[in-house]
Amino acid sequence: MKALVYHGPGRKSWDTVPDPVLQDSTDAIVQMETTTICGTDLHILKGDVPAVTPGRILGHEGVGVVTEVGSACTKVKVGDRVIVSCISKCGTCEYCVAGMTSHCQTVGGIGWIFGHLIDGTQAEYVRVPFADNGLIPLPDGVSPEQGTMLSDILPTGYEIGVLYGAVRRDDVVAVVGVGPVGLAAVMTASAAGAAKVIAVDGNKFRLEQSREFGATDTIDVNAGGDVVAELKELSRGGLGVDVAIEAVGVPVTFGVALDSVRPGGHMANVGVHGESVSFPIERDWINNLTITTGLVNATTAPELLEGIQRGDIAPEKFITHRFTFDQFDEAYETFGNAADEHALKVIIASS
Amino acid sequence: MKALVYHGPGRKSWDTVPDPVLQDSTDAIVQMETTTICGTDLHILKGDVPAVTPGRILGHEGVGVVTEVGSACTKVKVGDRVIVSCISKCGTCEYCVAGMTSHCQTVGGIGWIFGHLIDGTQAEYVRVPFADNGLIPLPDGVSPEQGTMLSDILPTGYEIGVLYGAVRRDDVVAVVGVGPVGLAAVMTASAAGAAKVIAVDGNKFRLEQSREFGATDTIDVNAGGDVVAELKELSRGGLGVDVAIEAVGVPVTFGVALDSVRPGGHMANVGVHGESVSFPIERDWINNLTITTGLVNATTAPELLEGIQRGDIAPEKFITHRFTFDQFDEAYETFGNAADEHALKVIIASS
Repeated sequence: MKALVYHGPGRKSWDTVPDPVLQDSTDAIVQMETTTICGTDLHILKGDVPAVTPGRILGHEGVGVVTEVGSACTKVKVGDRVIVSCISKCGTCEYCVAGMTSHCQTVGGIGWIFGHLIDGTQAEYVRVPFADNGLIPLPDGVSPEQGTMLSDILPTGYEIGVLYGAVRRDDVVAVVGVGPVGLAAVMTASAAGAAKVIAVDGNKFRLEQSREFGATDTIDVNAGGDVVAELKELSRGGLGVDVAIEAVGVPVTFGVALDSVRPGGHMANVGVHGESVSFPIERDWINNLTITTGLVNATTAPELLEGIQRGDIAPEKFITHRFTFDQFDEAYETFGNAADEHALKVIIASS
Repeated sequence: MKALVYHGPGRKSWDTVPDPVLQDSTDAIVQMETTTICGTDLHILKGDVPAVTPGRILGHEGVGVVTEVGSACTKVKVGDRVIVSCISKCGTCEYCVAGMTSHCQTVGGIGWIFGHLIDGTQAEYVRVPFADNGLIPLPDGVSPEQGTMLSDILPTGYEIGVLYGAVRRDDVVAVVGVGPVGLAAVMTASAAGAAKVIAVDGNKFRLEQSREFGATDTIDVNAGGDVVAELKELSRGGLGVDVAIEAVGVPVTFGVALDSVRPGGHMANVGVHGESVSFPIERDWINNLTITTGLVNATTAPELLEGIQRGDIAPEKFITHRFTFDQFDEAYETFGNAADEHALKVIIASS
């Protein structure tokens, strides 16, 4: 088969490689129809994720059709069209049973292994461990492109932003950084009934787009204002937002999110950070704050699918560019220059 | 009447001052029988809390008898023996209605005002605002000394440590720092059914005492071991404790607490901090942590009273030293040198 293979920092190519084969009775093989690129893939290509070694097939998102199943699979069947969850999970360890599949102990303590510790989904075929748990049937009326947004990005924004942030109906929510994951938080916070969803970013295209995803207000950090003061002005009583969702991963945005939360409020960190941040606990010890972090569990795909069918979740809005499997270089080029290219998510399809 | 008056950093005295009078129809006057000293009172005397101005009567804890009530009081009556809650609360603002009385907006946004913004309880009489909400009837069988521990310390350890830390039955809990508030967390975590409560401190007396409060294990930070590694060894699967409660308020203990928590675990900060801490979010973004901070709401006094009556909460264990109102200097001296004096909490009684 053909697959996108990592060859060390800065190097990848669409190579001919052996077809994947069933290794365990709980495995399945999926023929990929659509996949996408995540910010994490860009980090890997920069060499920022040393656990990814040369020869690894990249990617952890996508939709395809099951072509083989191991003898222990009882739910997935050959011919099923499925979403491949970015999280692999045994379903029986202490963490899986508690719903925190992000830390499945059986697959090594971090549930994200596709395109990381095992071969991934940017390929014609992928081997899926614990296939009964990691494959979600794509319902009628949901397209493979839509389904691909449910592998990672929409559950991440929803679970780690909205649910961990404990967004409630009529809350005022700030989303600091409205790249794709931030927009997923905007969309799902809006669907959760937030009174205001305030998008904060420095990119005019993204701020414009955020309105389409449900943002009620936008703040351009390059406009020269005091962003925290503006967020407080938009909050009830000027006390600060109920929930701030950080979706960038740098100290300055962490600070903006934390500084804008009201006493008793929540800050949900979604961003992937590369350095420590300062936590002004001499100010915040008294503020009854809840701060959360997390890798997605991807357990909410079923309810997000219902949202799509109901019409309040619209994954197609993320897709700005489309490519085919022979155009992975162009797809990475576009996604890697997302701001200039006005790209949100790119779809790469088998045909 | 006589009262302990703050006269600026380092200076206090047992002075004759005017009796308090009803100012609002929701006020009551309480004749104090027992009070105690909090670490916060020591901070005030060092001059660390500039909002406390010379002339202020100190103290925010105690038990007494109601001697006068305003016309709008419907629950408290003259002659009631009551616990004075350290938190003053209107009961009707957005925060009070949500149960977060620590940030009652009516009393200024921070519910702790006794011995801070208004005159306190280290006095023969105290004026209590919103008396129906701030006074808790002392049930038969609970002594004034026991009740005094429910003004602040036991609810603080329970609410901000155990409840905010989401301690569940069979959890492994670390309490980092077992001064009085840490011991309150130890006692209430134990009562909540924690499988292990691990006390961490550098003071041998406190570590010994912690066993009496329910600690199952102790770690002496001066013993030269790797405290975080020892905590992980005591945890299920070596993954880290389910809940770490920080009850000191300095960067090193914050770090020990955070470093010892398993993926998916909780860290509850109870300590009052004077400087920022470093938060290694480049490590923890993926760890699905929940970090909480907070000032006590003091809304759990009724259930703690039930615990006393049931026998699993024993406030009398805190009380190591007893004084009378004419001995405030000795009481502060003893509490200020708690480690050397082997003091936990001191009671100062009217007679």
